[in-house]
Amino acid sequence: MSITRRTVLAGTAAAAGAALAGPALAKAPMSGQQNAGFHRFKIGSFEVIALHDGVAVRDMPKGFVRNASDADVSAAFAELGLPADKLTITFTALAVNTGDKVVLFDAGNGGAGGPVGNVAKNLAAAGIQPGDVDVHAFSHFHGDHIGGVKAADGKLVFPNAEIVVPDAEWAFWMDDAKMNNAPEAMKGGFQLVRKQFADMAGKVRRQSWEKEVVPGITAIQADGHTPGHTAYLISSGNQQMMFVADITNHPGIFARRPEWQAIFDMDPQRAIDTRKRLLDRAAADKIRLSFYHAPFPATGFVVKDGAGYDFQQALWQNTL
Amino acid sequence: MSITRRTVLAGTAAAAGAALAGPALAKAPMSGQQNAGFHRFKIGSFEVIALHDGVAVRDMPKGFVRNASDADVSAAFAELGLPADKLTITFTALAVNTGDKVVLFDAGNGGAGGPVGNVAKNLAAAGIQPGDVDVHAFSHFHGDHIGGVKAADGKLVFPNAEIVVPDAEWAFWMDDAKMNNAPEAMKGGFQLVRKQFADMAGKVRRQSWEKEVVPGITAIQADGHTPGHTAYLISSGNQQMMFVADITNHPGIFARRPEWQAIFDMDPQRAIDTRKRLLDRAAADKIRLSFYHAPFPATGFVVKDGAGYDFQQALWQNTL
Repeated sequence: MSITRRTVLAGTAAAAGAALAGPALAKAPMSGQQNAGFHRFKIGSFEVIALHDGVAVRDMPKGFVRNASDADVSAAFAELGLPADKLTITFTALAVNTGDKVVLFDAGNGGAGGPVGNVAKNLAAAGIQPGDVDVHAFSHFHGDHIGGVKAADGKLVFPNAEIVVPDAEWAFWMDDAKMNNAPEAMKGGFQLVRKQFADMAGKVRRQSWEKEVVPGITAIQADGHTPGHTAYLISSGNQQMMFVADITNHPGIFARRPEWQAIFDMDPQRAIDTRKRLLDRAAADKIRLSFYHAPFPATGFVVKDGAGYDFQQALWQNTL
Repeated sequence: MSITRRTVLAGTAAAAGAALAGPALAKAPMSGQQNAGFHRFKIGSFEVIALHDGVAVRDMPKGFVRNASDADVSAAFAELGLPADKLTITFTALAVNTGDKVVLFDAGNGGAGGPVGNVAKNLAAAGIQPGDVDVHAFSHFHGDHIGGVKAADGKLVFPNAEIVVPDAEWAFWMDDAKMNNAPEAMKGGFQLVRKQFADMAGKVRRQSWEKEVVPGITAIQADGHTPGHTAYLISSGNQQMMFVADITNHPGIFARRPEWQAIFDMDPQRAIDTRKRLLDRAAADKIRLSFYHAPFPATGFVVKDGAGYDFQQALWQNTL
């Protein structure tokens, strides 16, 4: 018998001869647990799974948007019912089972689980074990996307996966001259890329834009956030969607205001151009999008509204 | 060993001497299954669980809104990225474990599961068995809220629960004179109420507005949708939320436009007054709301925007 609050209190009451029994307790104990963090949907014959890595709370809004005042940023947060002083950022990876291959996009922050670090756990909850991942593809090399490539012991979390990296991203972060010339605050980023990938150069496939990763999945140029930032177009039958990763941070803020420059974008003007180009394509062609930093499950549609785009989560349904 | 697509194909390939083996198959088979339809969050020390009953597709927009043109309704749908000709309506019940009592609000459509009828199944997935429900409280007596009270064999689905019904709702639907004078199309509604509740008059508690159901949960007058439509205020510690059931249908349409009269509202003007009163209170006091017909998990906050209110889903988090 497991020890629950009820059995403990029942024991206490029994010891006191039941004279001091507390209030009636519900037959069902408190859980303390959230549902598993995955959401499955179909694109043609493919099964797609949004995978919750977790959330992190970031103090806001000081300097969060380079070209907007703190007051304007606070007003944008208030529109979403969010407090002015902090933003809870969500991290959502994506897996696709094409029938022939399981492709995982990005790896989450890594770590042993908790507030973040839950990609592998939630993938397993969805029925796919780490060894079942055939291809591990990356949007870019920021730490919240590659931290989960290796466990604390240095072993690959997804041991059988071919690793697919954007060619331009690899070229930038593996360039020692760029690392040596980078500002001190950026050097940790270069070092993490080396820690995660340097010993696997022979295993890594460097992926060019507008080329297929596997049948039905194509890498799409989406640079600006980083030099090699890449989206992935996923097509099956007459349906398609795009994993757009970090073309926005929270789309309720940055799809709504595509000209805003979040501090995370390395080339702000290029990031704006990419954001507008892909959001405009998605709105015009009604392409379902999965963002990395939208509220979980982080997948839906954008609708053009004035100079921006409203992000509408896709409907949660219990049948695929 | 379970029979999967892979083992079947492997067997076929083996029978053919492997000469006719098909394309490589992913190590993980297709799932065909959605995640369990529950989402848990806390209000003070209470655990609250949004429970997905399912969805139903309704042809739109002919006559859906009494006082808006079909073109205006279509435009409202387009803002949400929805097609003009149909609306997928979500049904979401709510359970609260106060520690002393498990209280379930509404019952879903009933049936054997499938597109709808999944409240008990999803409650069990959240760790609460049907027999663990202590109090079964109802917002009102429309079929999508009381259909799940009894199984096909006539037995109560939640056999140990005290049944709590709004006093004014019971008075209306149990009035034989009202049933006899009702238009033919409404008689089925009266009959369903009798089928679900008439043999339990002795077991049912008739609940007055502004009175506690159990400690921490209070019935709130919210009539108009039906004569006894009731919301429930849930308070623990310094937090509170409200289960507002059908004060709107899809809040992206009707919280945004509180003057619109959906065909489901029995007293349209009274429904408007209730909608505005409760939405205004929730926006002013930042009270978390759970709607019955919002997209799952159907819980979040409303923010005043002009003459209406924007519904913002609460953030999905993997920790409570």
